[in-house]
Amino acid sequence: MKKIENIAVLTSGGDAPGMNAAIRAVVRAGIYNGLNVFGIRRGYDGLVHGDIIPMDAKSVANIIQRGGTVLKTARSDEFRTYEGRRQAFENIQKLGIDALVVIGGDGTFTGASKFIEEFDIPIIGIPGTIDNDLAGTDFTIGYDTAINTVVDAVDKIRDTAESHDRLFVVEVMGRDSGLIALRSGISTGAEAVLIPELEVDYDAIMKRLDKTRKNKSSRIIIVAEGDKEGGLVVAEKIQENFPHYDVRVSILGHIQRGGKPTCMDRVLASRLGVASVEALLEGRRGEMAGLICGQVQFTPFSKAIKHIDKINENLTRIVEILSL
Amino acid sequence: MKKIENIAVLTSGGDAPGMNAAIRAVVRAGIYNGLNVFGIRRGYDGLVHGDIIPMDAKSVANIIQRGGTVLKTARSDEFRTYEGRRQAFENIQKLGIDALVVIGGDGTFTGASKFIEEFDIPIIGIPGTIDNDLAGTDFTIGYDTAINTVVDAVDKIRDTAESHDRLFVVEVMGRDSGLIALRSGISTGAEAVLIPELEVDYDAIMKRLDKTRKNKSSRIIIVAEGDKEGGLVVAEKIQENFPHYDVRVSILGHIQRGGKPTCMDRVLASRLGVASVEALLEGRRGEMAGLICGQVQFTPFSKAIKHIDKINENLTRIVEILSL
Amino acid sequence: MKKIENIAVLTSGGDAPGMNAAIRAVVRAGIYNGLNVFGIRRGYDGLVHGDIIPMDAKSVANIIQRGGTVLKTARSDEFRTYEGRRQAFENIQKLGIDALVVIGGDGTFTGASKFIEEFDIPIIGIPGTIDNDLAGTDFTIGYDTAINTVVDAVDKIRDTAESHDRLFVVEVMGRDSGLIALRSGISTGAEAVLIPELEVDYDAIMKRLDKTRKNKSSRIIIVAEGDKEGGLVVAEKIQENFPHYDVRVSILGHIQRGGKPTCMDRVLASRLGVASVEALLEGRRGEMAGLICGQVQFTPFSKAIKHIDKINENLTRIVEILSL
Amino acid sequence: MKKIENIAVLTSGGDAPGMNAAIRAVVRAGIYNGLNVFGIRRGYDGLVHGDIIPMDAKSVANIIQRGGTVLKTARSDEFRTYEGRRQAFENIQKLGIDALVVIGGDGTFTGASKFIEEFDIPIIGIPGTIDNDLAGTDFTIGYDTAINTVVDAVDKIRDTAESHDRLFVVEVMGRDSGLIALRSGISTGAEAVLIPELEVDYDAIMKRLDKTRKNKSSRIIIVAEGDKEGGLVVAEKIQENFPHYDVRVSILGHIQRGGKPTCMDRVLASRLGVASVEALLEGRRGEMAGLICGQVQFTPFSKAIKHIDKINENLTRIVEILSL
Repeated sequence: MKKIENIAVLTSGGDAPGMNAAIRAVVRAGIYNGLNVFGIRRGYDGLVHGDIIPMDAKSVANIIQRGGTVLKTARSDEFRTYEGRRQAFENIQKLGIDALVVIGGDGTFTGASKFIEEFDIPIIGIPGTIDNDLAGTDFTIGYDTAINTVVDAVDKIRDTAESHDRLFVVEVMGRDSGLIALRSGISTGAEAVLIPELEVDYDAIMKRLDKTRKNKSSRIIIVAEGDKEGGLVVAEKIQENFPHYDVRVSILGHIQRGGKPTCMDRVLASRLGVASVEALLEGRRGEMAGLICGQVQFTPFSKAIKHIDKINENLTRIVEILSL
Repeated sequence: MKKIENIAVLTSGGDAPGMNAAIRAVVRAGIYNGLNVFGIRRGYDGLVHGDIIPMDAKSVANIIQRGGTVLKTARSDEFRTYEGRRQAFENIQKLGIDALVVIGGDGTFTGASKFIEEFDIPIIGIPGTIDNDLAGTDFTIGYDTAINTVVDAVDKIRDTAESHDRLFVVEVMGRDSGLIALRSGISTGAEAVLIPELEVDYDAIMKRLDKTRKNKSSRIIIVAEGDKEGGLVVAEKIQENFPHYDVRVSILGHIQRGGKPTCMDRVLASRLGVASVEALLEGRRGEMAGLICGQVQFTPFSKAIKHIDKINENLTRIVEILSL
Repeated sequence: MKKIENIAVLTSGGDAPGMNAAIRAVVRAGIYNGLNVFGIRRGYDGLVHGDIIPMDAKSVANIIQRGGTVLKTARSDEFRTYEGRRQAFENIQKLGIDALVVIGGDGTFTGASKFIEEFDIPIIGIPGTIDNDLAGTDFTIGYDTAINTVVDAVDKIRDTAESHDRLFVVEVMGRDSGLIALRSGISTGAEAVLIPELEVDYDAIMKRLDKTRKNKSSRIIIVAEGDKEGGLVVAEKIQENFPHYDVRVSILGHIQRGGKPTCMDRVLASRLGVASVEALLEGRRGEMAGLICGQVQFTPFSKAIKHIDKINENLTRIVEILSL
Repeated sequence: MKKIENIAVLTSGGDAPGMNAAIRAVVRAGIYNGLNVFGIRRGYDGLVHGDIIPMDAKSVANIIQRGGTVLKTARSDEFRTYEGRRQAFENIQKLGIDALVVIGGDGTFTGASKFIEEFDIPIIGIPGTIDNDLAGTDFTIGYDTAINTVVDAVDKIRDTAESHDRLFVVEVMGRDSGLIALRSGISTGAEAVLIPELEVDYDAIMKRLDKTRKNKSSRIIIVAEGDKEGGLVVAEKIQENFPHYDVRVSILGHIQRGGKPTCMDRVLASRLGVASVEALLEGRRGEMAGLICGQVQFTPFSKAIKHIDKINENLTRIVEILSL
């Protein structure tokens, strides 16, 4: 196996708070271990087009607290073609880059797997996505920040709901996963949480709304965007059932991706950034670094992207108990 | 004129951050001046239905920092009828209430005017609305908090816009007024701000977008909800004109009403709360207390609700200069 | 064993964000399980003096997002005496309270152990302390919020440090534990973190400061208050060694205890609140409910208070690697 | 008068949130008006040492929301000497710089006055200081952000004060000015506010504390750092007078300088930045741009630095009324 002397790092897929902390950790851990580190801009697209810059310790100073990604991220249709990947490999060879760290989600790791298969380049992945939908890590980078952003927004909505005795249906991110919805639902005292993983029992919801009415002047229903029906339909159904309720809808949208990363996301990103570099030096490749029960663990890309269902039945039960 | 010994306070219309600070100031200033103070719940609706509670200094402890209104607010169709107002007046007489302080916007003051006309009850108004659309005060209570909430949300959107080189159209509150849009637009470095008070010059916007392209990777366009076309249409037009742009829309919605009031809103509410009680004791009525150039001023309700246009041409000019 | 029909909940020791979420969960889980629930005010002091109030579902509405504790907390010298505990027991008997949930830290659980020993009353504990210094749970309630408050404060200090090319020594909470210091240090890109668990190697710190100078204009050193020397002394030593540095000290103090709980603290508090009630009903007693690797686990009080050292060597290593 | 073609901007004195927004506005307004713009790093020190860089529209992209100052700031003993200023003038001449915009406080403008006197260079000042202690503007840039930071911190302290029934003495910034103390005191419901501008009447404070005791479980006293005695002494006196109170002190310190600027500070900075460039082009010099009653006004440096007392007697009266 070739000795690793030059590595490069990129971010890909939807941006997530903490990606900058991960980039910083990769760059500094690389330098700490005597490597040269490059930054690839705009994800795989920058790899295909050679948009690659040298990074030093100073180039990542004062970014740990910034949302987004200083390396930018983008879709790359070209990297999905063999020709695109070939071009990417040539760019890597030109600069003498021996290994990659890719920060992103399942699409990122699928691309990386293909690239390893065809060009035998060592790659380690870091889970950077607000959706927390990867196997092999308890939490993905960005998830904790995103749910805190949701909680903060719903707290604000609660103020106005409480003042007007309103019921609010709040739609939060999570196309395939109800994790953001579930945790933010518990945290905001939601009456009900609708997620793609579970069939909605409207009868039960309507009964609960009716039953808990005397204890509450305001109510919040959290709906994951991946729910079959979406926030607007859910709101209509409730309004139909309880015509005298003052029902409103709020779709939180893109604010959920941005903002300063929380402490947890910064620590997670820092640990996985260091671990990914050390893993490359130890000869690992084709794996994602994750944190399981406080320990760094590695999981093959093929397993990590399997969206193993992390919905904890205990959490759904807690929503019900506490919505009294 | 009858000596004022008992007063009552209510909040009406859309809730605004700082209403609690205003309630607290009215209650404490009342007690400080030897009055009994009552709280009317759910605005004029509570007045009609006699939902009125005694308040003491302690009942408003620790609420200055809370969003929403502890007295709640509601629409009241009944108060719009003579019969409703007659009932309201009876409730007031029953409790010996001599005067009212009403916190709200133009609808609130219109109702108050009618009530004074018919039943000759002294009322002073406090401007509590996020829209800042009243004459007779530089700022309404809640406005400063709302624009800071918008700015905070757009800062988050900027993170993701910057990471993906996107153009975001962000729709903010302001049905009749572009003030939230204009100030938040300057504060977030928006490329353009579309407001109901001004005709949109799409040609100019498109030219500016094209011209400034090289200086910016992300762009933000702020649209007031009262704009003729709304955020979605604006986004479509831009997308049509620049098919290769990655254009997204975010409608901020109800989060803009909630949250902890800013220092400015708390001070404003505290000053106007004290002033409203002192005004009643000095024999004023039918007027709104406002702050103009740092001084408390009183404006008759009929003038206050005239939506005098506060759009400062300097501000629109500044958006243009700084969007280079 | 007597059937449990009436339970009471108290908070004790230093307040921690999330205590209200835990109270809410205990009250609602109690009601959900058909119990009557009482709230004891001001910790063990209220128990001794019979300051005990009935709680219903509504009494804990809209508190999940509030810092502090609505039941208040206090020191109780009397509860440390047998006579005090006897009085407490009488108060419990008078109201027919069969079991207690106590929310707090090691002092709280030590008191509870004594109380069980003498009066055989079932008690379950919930870890509520910002210090995260208890065995039997990965995190205590309040810890995640406190470190985020620290991180937010240090981010602000970084702005001014960066503008003036200054070195800041920031002292954070943690009398016996460096956990707040360590995680916030990683999160804020601190140059060094001084904690009570580890001997300070000043030589190494001075060397590192000198070596990394060219990469950084500002530097942050985090010192746990329990560190042998404290922030002021550390600052003096650095200033002596590098007379031309602009060294400043900031002691964060009490702001670290307050504020809205983070999502993580709310979920943790909600889960442990429900678990504590269910544990009492299952016959458990004298144990603390904790969360280990995402699963609720119970640990005898005697073990929980043993301050098992949670300092992760990996974390100290990461501070060093990333401070390049 | 020589035509102005090249201008430079610097920040000097203590950093203040919003300075970046002001720099951005100067740079872009300069370019908008066809000028070349330079940035001087580290205040007058950079002017003396020629640390001057060209700025374009892009160099100030995405900084409007950042605390601190990207141009950095520093003390300059050399600029206080004639020799230093002569060197500064040479650097300006070398680069063909025709005029300066200086952002800072009274020290900054005193230096500028001297420089104009000796070398006849057009300079316009922008008030950038958290202290709001300049005549000629209702508010200085950074003041609104700083008081909101204070309010946010005291809200957190209120949580813990309320939980423990404590009295907190909080010391806030303001060496010569009680404005931060006064406004944050009103905003946090402080019992009393001690400021350098007013003699402290301890008797009155003690009486009020005693009298209001039944209405409040927690109390906050705000002390400006410039107060004769400071927070620690005030706390001791209260403790002596009320030995059974649980009195604590918190000195907020440097967190008050940092953080994202509020909307108000960003708008203020943007307006004054544009105005300062336009003023130079109109032939103004030796004046500070300020905002009075919503209008841009210019005040000679000699008047601006006179610390005209802005303490509003109404505000001190409001603290008293509302502390019931």
